[in-house]
Amino acid sequence: MPLVRIDLRKGKEAAYRQEIGRVVYEALVGVGVPKNDRFQVISEHEAENFLFDPDYIGIHRTEEFVIIQITWNEGRSTEQKKALHKAIADGPLSAVGLRREDVFTNLVEVKKENWSFGNGEAQYAA
Amino acid sequence: MPLVRIDLRKGKEAAYRQEIGRVVYEALVGVGVPKNDRFQVISEHEAENFLFDPDYIGIHRTEEFVIIQITWNEGRSTEQKKALHKAIADGPLSAVGLRREDVFTNLVEVKKENWSFGNGEAQYAA
Amino acid sequence: MPLVRIDLRKGKEAAYRQEIGRVVYEALVGVGVPKNDRFQVISEHEAENFLFDPDYIGIHRTEEFVIIQITWNEGRSTEQKKALHKAIADGPLSAVGLRREDVFTNLVEVKKENWSFGNGEAQYAA
Repeated sequence: MPLVRIDLRKGKEAAYRQEIGRVVYEALVGVGVPKNDRFQVISEHEAENFLFDPDYIGIHRTEEFVIIQITWNEGRSTEQKKALHKAIADGPLSAVGLRREDVFTNLVEVKKENWSFGNGEAQYAA
Repeated sequence: MPLVRIDLRKGKEAAYRQEIGRVVYEALVGVGVPKNDRFQVISEHEAENFLFDPDYIGIHRTEEFVIIQITWNEGRSTEQKKALHKAIADGPLSAVGLRREDVFTNLVEVKKENWSFGNGEAQYAA
Repeated sequence: MPLVRIDLRKGKEAAYRQEIGRVVYEALVGVGVPKNDRFQVISEHEAENFLFDPDYIGIHRTEEFVIIQITWNEGRSTEQKKALHKAIADGPLSAVGLRREDVFTNLVEVKKENWSFGNGEAQYAA
């Protein structure tokens, strides 16, 4: 269910990009998303098409900056959302050299009947 | 109004991609979207940037897999949404060789005043 | 906080694209978004992947057409949203030769705790 859009600058190896995808997936499973529920689109951009403030809200961002937008089901608590933001930015990504300051996450919430995983059926509808 | 984002692997001809766009448009009109209300962005990806589980929820996906994310107005019933998921995956796409198992759809709902179709006016606002 | 996705046809210079980004940012600040809260992704498309009706709702669109999708916090009034649509399409963009008829805007609303601007913290959560 979560549909994940990952946007970053061009120039990183495939292994680096896929590691970001893996960490996001693991973080989602960690807050209750079903195993194997993984759908991710990665887009790479030239600097001129990837614009962000380097210091907004007192956090210093570099050209490693990554935007992760996740569409998933409504109903998660603020605590679950906080845990997800934290799990994505923390720990594992530092293994590929991505600083916590360079991880931007955004959640978009939808209803259960808003998904079809194939066959034209709304598998999560009540 | 519906803003449609279609994501798929690189390697398909323009006619194939546009047929997907056409089928999505027809399916939307079929559940009550106005005629000619068509706004679609297609993005093609390398395999390494288009990640999906090949078997989640018991549906087998191939490299033909397509993700269709539709932002439209809130207020549709679950029955209308089910009809839309079904209309997109069924029938017409099989004409271009796209299996129903390879069609993923997701709906994002917004308010009527959240659109401007040009001229800076919110044409759907009450 | 606003995460802005700007989609347009390939073929425009970087300065043109960045001017669109600047105008969207200024318009957002004009309706109350904090200064420097700027996060924008620009995607350029071949004509065959950027599909829109040239006349829907009686507005004539050309190949200069631009789709601007903005994810931001819920709670804005219809008047604020109208002001935003208008501020983006009006005035400044005409300086780069973009007609008001060719500006499409769409807002997606989320909750305050749905954002992390870095460090894995939900900076806007209550």
